[in-house]
Amino acid sequence: MNEKKILLVVCDGLSDRPVRQFGGKTPLQAARKPAMDAVARNGVSGIMDVIAPGVIPGSDTAHLALFGYDPFKVYTGRGPIEAAGAGIPVDRGDVAFRCNFATVDESMKVVDRRAGRIRNGTDELAKSLSGMKIEDVTALFREGSEHRGALVFKGPGLDHRVSDVDPHHETEILESKPQVPSAEKTARVLNEFVRKSYEILSEHPVNKHRSKEGLHPANILLPRGAGSIREIESMRERYGMKCAAVAGVTLVKGICRLVGMEVPDVKGATGGLDTDYRAKADAALGLLDSNDFVFVNVKACDIAGHDGDFKMKVSVIENIDVMLGVILKDIQEDSVVILTADHSTPVVVRDHSADPVPVAISGAGTRVDGVKEFDEISVGGGVLGRIRGTDLLPIALGMADRAKKFGA
Amino acid sequence: MNEKKILLVVCDGLSDRPVRQFGGKTPLQAARKPAMDAVARNGVSGIMDVIAPGVIPGSDTAHLALFGYDPFKVYTGRGPIEAAGAGIPVDRGDVAFRCNFATVDESMKVVDRRAGRIRNGTDELAKSLSGMKIEDVTALFREGSEHRGALVFKGPGLDHRVSDVDPHHETEILESKPQVPSAEKTARVLNEFVRKSYEILSEHPVNKHRSKEGLHPANILLPRGAGSIREIESMRERYGMKCAAVAGVTLVKGICRLVGMEVPDVKGATGGLDTDYRAKADAALGLLDSNDFVFVNVKACDIAGHDGDFKMKVSVIENIDVMLGVILKDIQEDSVVILTADHSTPVVVRDHSADPVPVAISGAGTRVDGVKEFDEISVGGGVLGRIRGTDLLPIALGMADRAKKFGA
Repeated sequence: MNEKKILLVVCDGLSDRPVRQFGGKTPLQAARKPAMDAVARNGVSGIMDVIAPGVIPGSDTAHLALFGYDPFKVYTGRGPIEAAGAGIPVDRGDVAFRCNFATVDESMKVVDRRAGRIRNGTDELAKSLSGMKIEDVTALFREGSEHRGALVFKGPGLDHRVSDVDPHHETEILESKPQVPSAEKTARVLNEFVRKSYEILSEHPVNKHRSKEGLHPANILLPRGAGSIREIESMRERYGMKCAAVAGVTLVKGICRLVGMEVPDVKGATGGLDTDYRAKADAALGLLDSNDFVFVNVKACDIAGHDGDFKMKVSVIENIDVMLGVILKDIQEDSVVILTADHSTPVVVRDHSADPVPVAISGAGTRVDGVKEFDEISVGGGVLGRIRGTDLLPIALGMADRAKKFGA
Repeated sequence: MNEKKILLVVCDGLSDRPVRQFGGKTPLQAARKPAMDAVARNGVSGIMDVIAPGVIPGSDTAHLALFGYDPFKVYTGRGPIEAAGAGIPVDRGDVAFRCNFATVDESMKVVDRRAGRIRNGTDELAKSLSGMKIEDVTALFREGSEHRGALVFKGPGLDHRVSDVDPHHETEILESKPQVPSAEKTARVLNEFVRKSYEILSEHPVNKHRSKEGLHPANILLPRGAGSIREIESMRERYGMKCAAVAGVTLVKGICRLVGMEVPDVKGATGGLDTDYRAKADAALGLLDSNDFVFVNVKACDIAGHDGDFKMKVSVIENIDVMLGVILKDIQEDSVVILTADHSTPVVVRDHSADPVPVAISGAGTRVDGVKEFDEISVGGGVLGRIRGTDLLPIALGMADRAKKFGA
């Protein structure tokens, strides 16, 4: 049997909940989307828990799952997740930490692990630390919510197996210790970073101001939860496919590179509401000529969801549909097309939600069920049933005659 | 996004199989149940394997799963569940047993494993045993229904891996043996407890009186099903919700207490066919004011199933429907309502079966599929698909905007 090509189109944050003011419809139900409906009508549909039922997917973990990788296994420690959350890209070889802004006295005893639950000024404090060079390591730091932040070390010879600086109690801060010999450098750099953070933060105007107001100064960072991204097999090693991606968003591009996809820059593919859909369609078709697997991410519906803008979301969906139509018109008939979302971003929630996403797969010779429309409800009648994100690519590989046999 | 409240209504043993004499309908299909149908009509439906496909759930394991706990991980032996149900708090490190009051002759041969199914006086017998000190272990004992009771050992160095004293037949009682070296002390204390229970019970006025009346004296306790509780987070710790339960059956109450729910006594909520449905509805509505999660268990359909009484089961379902109607009428619109069963108890089986159960979830803003009726077959067309019991609460938490994000 001929191995077929696979096109995976992920509309970021596409799915939604019904909105009363708009006739109890979801944006997907309200939109005119003949190309999306054609994928459902010509193939099989279902709903999908991208991570697991009741887990709100991040775009990073969701894409890992959609590429067939268990996100719980790819990450070690919470550090990389916090960092991804704070918007610092974590690459293989980096070590990432969760941090608290805290208050210490002159003997390095922690007075307040949360620096009075500081809320204002952490962005300025973060800027004063980020970019610091220690030996040949660059430390990137960004603030999170309240007293939280994320720290990423980038440089050669790092290893995440170091102990926490954060003592987790109001007592003296700890010296980070390597737990394996190969982590000695990381522990040394970390201790130096903490020492310098104290020097810099103690003198920072934000803290001078806090002290004047009688508030605990955020005069030190306490890193914990060191983690790195495990060495993971590339998609080529794993599935024997040459893979490429069309994506505008940094976080998603990072995940694609992590799994070894080629990620060319596409002019006009910004990841924003102004993204050039036609350019994306052309890029996807071009990449399909020389690759076995092409992934297209369109971010714009997520943005409309975060903005709580129903009409904008409908309009974005209709634009994506035009892009999809261009691709479907010119794609080789003998390809498997997957259409889905990485998570829901309901306009009433204005953030990611745990609601499952619709999925449809069509292509040469696949089964065809009775689903005629691609939306959160219609796909419930499809023969894909309710699947997990990590099952999606294996199912598609099966349809593309690229699956492996187990047994005789 | 506002976190919503969650109401979980579990109709014990509700679901069934079609019965030829009644037009090939299940009791649920035959019953008039507008309130149940409304939950399905206004939300999403599906079918659920409460434990796993082909596993017949017990009420205890089923409820653990419905509260989101993997029963295979929580549970060692039946003892702790019986004890929690009888109202003895079981803490980590304790070892708990189910016990029968039994009758032995002087050679320690069991004459009657149920002491003539003794009903009266077990409270007094229990008091004469509870609080006994053996070595540094305190033995707490409380009577259950009829000849049953629960025993809990509290003290250092206990291990539940000991064999039963109960021979399970009318033969000589067994000596408990440790199954691992660390359980030697527990076995020794248990054998001593049984010996002492015989001494004390033989002389007890309740038994003197029984002997005079020609009844079998309850002159010994036969412990079995030793178990302990693994570290289990309360629902509050796990989900950040204040939780309460309305339940009449001891076993179910025990599970609720085990996971840290408040379980007030509701007057008239007996767990029997005569339970006061109106009182249950009022109690549930009252608890919803001050809790985030309220669980209601109605036992009566299970009883009708065990009795093999189709008409009784239909009638019970219609009564429960009235109760549900009262709740739905007064519940805050902005709440998530889950309607399901803990297992099937088909009237043709007269016992629990592995048939999956129907489930429907409705509430403020959730998706709405095309399912119009709540029964074993109609829900199969719903967008929930086929789920596992342990997925139910995570899914509901997602709908209630209480789910956690994984990733960025």
